[in-house]
Amino acid sequence: MIATSETCDDFLMGRVKLLQPAKGYRAGIDPVLLAAATPAQAGQTVLELGCGAGAASLCLNARVSGLSFVGVEMQGLYADLARRNAVRNGADMEVVQADIQSMPLSVRDRRFDHVIANPPYYLKNKFTASNDEGRNVAVSGETPLETWIDLASKRLGPRGYFTMIQKADRLLDILANLHGRLGSVRVRPIQARSDREARLVIVQARKLGRADFVLEAPLRMHDGPRHERDGDSYSEQALAILRHSAALGWGD
Amino acid sequence: MIATSETCDDFLMGRVKLLQPAKGYRAGIDPVLLAAATPAQAGQTVLELGCGAGAASLCLNARVSGLSFVGVEMQGLYADLARRNAVRNGADMEVVQADIQSMPLSVRDRRFDHVIANPPYYLKNKFTASNDEGRNVAVSGETPLETWIDLASKRLGPRGYFTMIQKADRLLDILANLHGRLGSVRVRPIQARSDREARLVIVQARKLGRADFVLEAPLRMHDGPRHERDGDSYSEQALAILRHSAALGWGD
Repeated sequence: MIATSETCDDFLMGRVKLLQPAKGYRAGIDPVLLAAATPAQAGQTVLELGCGAGAASLCLNARVSGLSFVGVEMQGLYADLARRNAVRNGADMEVVQADIQSMPLSVRDRRFDHVIANPPYYLKNKFTASNDEGRNVAVSGETPLETWIDLASKRLGPRGYFTMIQKADRLLDILANLHGRLGSVRVRPIQARSDREARLVIVQARKLGRADFVLEAPLRMHDGPRHERDGDSYSEQALAILRHSAALGWGD
Repeated sequence: MIATSETCDDFLMGRVKLLQPAKGYRAGIDPVLLAAATPAQAGQTVLELGCGAGAASLCLNARVSGLSFVGVEMQGLYADLARRNAVRNGADMEVVQADIQSMPLSVRDRRFDHVIANPPYYLKNKFTASNDEGRNVAVSGETPLETWIDLASKRLGPRGYFTMIQKADRLLDILANLHGRLGSVRVRPIQARSDREARLVIVQARKLGRADFVLEAPLRMHDGPRHERDGDSYSEQALAILRHSAALGWGD
């Protein structure tokens, strides 16, 4: 039963069916890319900080079987949707309604193989707020990136992976806050077209990692030099991820 | 008159003719890329830290007229070559033989519109030394990147640009050391092919700059997925820079 204020949207060609509020913050392709870039393997545990309605975790669950998830979401509306979406998509996912800065002991006592996050892209004071409070919280957080990264680092087990998607212009802030917490940093730029600056970055880092920094080849979302028509064509690599649940590999 | 131990090499299709030692450190395309990425305009001043035989400054001089250069080079052999190369290529370039950490007052008293640098790519203790001491110093420095960046920052006038080319795996170190010294940071990845990680980065930063960080589209050196034949074809953009003295623009 879908309430009138909700929609059910397909991700990964319908392999994930996601209930979302009809208005307010709605997942786009960013959580799909985050899931594609998370190098999880069957049997591992995943903590998603700020999981919203669950798009990233559930896309990851659709690609890799045998994972178990904990999602932490501050807003009750989205935490409730995430719980229902987990059931609907057959995921082993516990959803905890909490601010990431005050997670319950049941989460703080655990270490995970993966922590993933798609933190709000704007700081609250920089953001022109809409009338939808749920959307405001989802896109413009009060929690600095340092807190997201610090909490991720603390919840990772040895050699565990942190994977985050964020606006490219916040990369300096991200890298500065990874320093001293996580290593083996790799950055994957996401660009609209081959001649455009990166709009987003996916950053991977490992607990106790000591490998050299790697700046990966960008993921190019569209072919051609410009938008040429409606229903603009995705690049082959973007299509593989968005439609065929391909992984976005690292170092390949 | 060219001594037998020297060669005279063409850069930018012969617009720059560079005397270099036949053995030892010899400039490749990296200084050409550095010069292409330096946003200098006629009438401005340029300080090159560690100028070697002068390749980067002289390529920049070939592209932009009316510049005046100071090159600082620690090794007498290369400083001497740089002086002769400046004359041979008609550049207004003063070459100072000095360690960048002990530059004479004549340099330390000045502020420049641009500081450019192509620091050694390896730290001395990590580098397998060759028998050529001149080459060893040129490719494996004892001076940490922090010192290069600190000295560049101090020599820049207000709104002046720092432009550096360096191995991509040292980007974290570079960005950490720019913090608090220079702003408006932009990074241009240089990749061999479209699916490869960045081998080099060109980093631009401005004195007193406050703009958002930008991760530019990579410069792709070669077309196609792999090396297919000897005399492998450069990409159109690489050719424009290496053969036709094009600028490597920022944000375009």
